[in-house]
Amino acid sequence: MNVIVNGRAQPFRTVTFDAKTNSVLLIEQRLLPHEFKIVATKNFQETAKAITDMIVRGAGAIGATAAYGFAQGALAFQGGHSGKFSAHVDRVYHTLKNARPTAVDPVNAMNAVRAAMRAGKTVEEKKGLALAAAEEFANDDVHHCEAIGKHGLKLIRNGMKILTHCNAGWLAFVDIGSATAPMYAAQAAGKKFHVFCDETRPRSQGATLTAWELAQQKISHQIIADNAAGHLMQLGEIDLVIVGSDRTLGRTGEVTNKIGTYTKAVLAARHKIPFYVAIPLSTIDWNLKSGLRIPIEERSESEVLGAWGVSAGPKSTVQSPKSAERLYVRVANPMSGARNPGFDVTPPELITGIITPAGIFKPRDLWRQRRKLGFKN
Amino acid sequence: MNVIVNGRAQPFRTVTFDAKTNSVLLIEQRLLPHEFKIVATKNFQETAKAITDMIVRGAGAIGATAAYGFAQGALAFQGGHSGKFSAHVDRVYHTLKNARPTAVDPVNAMNAVRAAMRAGKTVEEKKGLALAAAEEFANDDVHHCEAIGKHGLKLIRNGMKILTHCNAGWLAFVDIGSATAPMYAAQAAGKKFHVFCDETRPRSQGATLTAWELAQQKISHQIIADNAAGHLMQLGEIDLVIVGSDRTLGRTGEVTNKIGTYTKAVLAARHKIPFYVAIPLSTIDWNLKSGLRIPIEERSESEVLGAWGVSAGPKSTVQSPKSAERLYVRVANPMSGARNPGFDVTPPELITGIITPAGIFKPRDLWRQRRKLGFKN
Repeated sequence: MNVIVNGRAQPFRTVTFDAKTNSVLLIEQRLLPHEFKIVATKNFQETAKAITDMIVRGAGAIGATAAYGFAQGALAFQGGHSGKFSAHVDRVYHTLKNARPTAVDPVNAMNAVRAAMRAGKTVEEKKGLALAAAEEFANDDVHHCEAIGKHGLKLIRNGMKILTHCNAGWLAFVDIGSATAPMYAAQAAGKKFHVFCDETRPRSQGATLTAWELAQQKISHQIIADNAAGHLMQLGEIDLVIVGSDRTLGRTGEVTNKIGTYTKAVLAARHKIPFYVAIPLSTIDWNLKSGLRIPIEERSESEVLGAWGVSAGPKSTVQSPKSAERLYVRVANPMSGARNPGFDVTPPELITGIITPAGIFKPRDLWRQRRKLGFKN
Repeated sequence: MNVIVNGRAQPFRTVTFDAKTNSVLLIEQRLLPHEFKIVATKNFQETAKAITDMIVRGAGAIGATAAYGFAQGALAFQGGHSGKFSAHVDRVYHTLKNARPTAVDPVNAMNAVRAAMRAGKTVEEKKGLALAAAEEFANDDVHHCEAIGKHGLKLIRNGMKILTHCNAGWLAFVDIGSATAPMYAAQAAGKKFHVFCDETRPRSQGATLTAWELAQQKISHQIIADNAAGHLMQLGEIDLVIVGSDRTLGRTGEVTNKIGTYTKAVLAARHKIPFYVAIPLSTIDWNLKSGLRIPIEERSESEVLGAWGVSAGPKSTVQSPKSAERLYVRVANPMSGARNPGFDVTPPELITGIITPAGIFKPRDLWRQRRKLGFKN
């Protein structure tokens, strides 16, 4: 999608590969929204560190980063000895796998690349197949998001006001995003609409990443406190809710997403506002039998007790102040602690539909439609 | 209630009067929770400025401040000329009334003091009556909160986990508070319980003021993001919700309170968790016929787009770091704007009961019980 650089909109992807320099190019997401910068990782160790350090985040984006990093590692191998190449590639695989041990996407991505490499006979052939497979993985991520956009487009009518929570935008994928895909498709189709971005405390991904994305794309939007959506629904100012999901249970239709998603679903149900969840098929969990079994990460207290920002004024006409230094301020009473669950689970009865690359489904229909949704067992 | 000063718990009121120096003593609330400081206003102009500048806030607290400021102004009059005294007192009245033009409590408080002064024949007598009436107003505020605590006490059982939103604590009154009154009464009765404080973005009064109050009083508590309460309710970790109210409609039972209150009421209803609103009788509006007619203040964007805090670590073992400098950091995307409604309206069907100094009432019974609740017309 677009990033405004020196006043001009230029297309970018979250993750790309520069074959000339054998580098992975990443948007440095920790600096957003205050600064836009591309980081080039020169070798697979740097790429692994970029995943660990959260320069790149989001399921699709780290999957593609690992795929490229794996190819990058393979391409850096010197010589033609197959056994040594194989051992080297194993080391690359494990380094990238351990970059974020709980994430499943890097592993899936690298498995796809490794499988493609098997068709090669020589080291050189395997290298070429690795890069082609990584590119294919990244392009597939984009195509899946495009398909979500195509199906979700019909939900957005002219003049609508849409609520979203957290960031399920292109920064979390290679491009386009999941919850944002129908919005970008609607914009391309010439529809007019307005987006309310929940700020999404405690990490404020809505106020920082989603608002940044929409501003770059010149989509009308406003940030609201997480407390405000209920009131706006009472006033009839929200027509549609679209969020993403970290994990959707294929057997039950339960949706795990950023903390606060459940609250918005409860409010939407009370006000009879359609509540949609947009997901790529890779985030469907076909094994778990109950949302109660989803482990909910308890994150650091410091996120709730304070906030990260820059010491600038509240609103600026400057696009991205150069090297704005990020500061942590403690907001809360110094003697008080916090609870900080990172995610919550929304039950299927509160969800109008799940928007997937294969179409829109009722959450309880996922299991019945599992063949269509890529479940192979 | 208690404030821990140099490691020892000492009793304080939010607002007191020092007759020796003719000063109003106020807790400087803008410095909380990072610093505890008492400000003495030396004359009625300074007292008015303290109200304007929000050194003191909260309906009961600014009412008592205006009552004391009015007496302070009267007491400062030199000489015994009744006509000149009367003109002086009028000037004091209007200065304090204009300190926060939209607030009704300062006016009600000063009207009570002025009415009491009429019984005096000389200037000296009127001065004495003014001070006595101001003291009575402040003490009545405390007694009303004590009565709320007495009635609310029975709602709190041992081991309960209680959610509250924003600050309806003693800092908003002369002492004790409204939503906190049942908690302080339960503590005094030896009950054990835990309080979750919604941080209450965008101004974070829960994370700052309510958490500070509870910490001073050594009541077990944790701060949560406004997004987290729904998840905790799903886990069965919230047994009771108690909030305050800025304005309760006596004819309909609708409750206006800090933005986000409605959301918590909707969640509580879904989870069949009792949802109570604690109020002094002075905040009941007997005139308005519909919550739709309550004007909802749209506040500054900057509140949503950033946060105020101190550049300390996230949690400190130091009670109140001396002169911790408060900083504003911009969190949000610099090119994005915000919507910032300050309040919302909760309908009576979501409210289990209204805790008043005269007892606990169903919200729709307020009108039928209006004589008992002090409605005189």
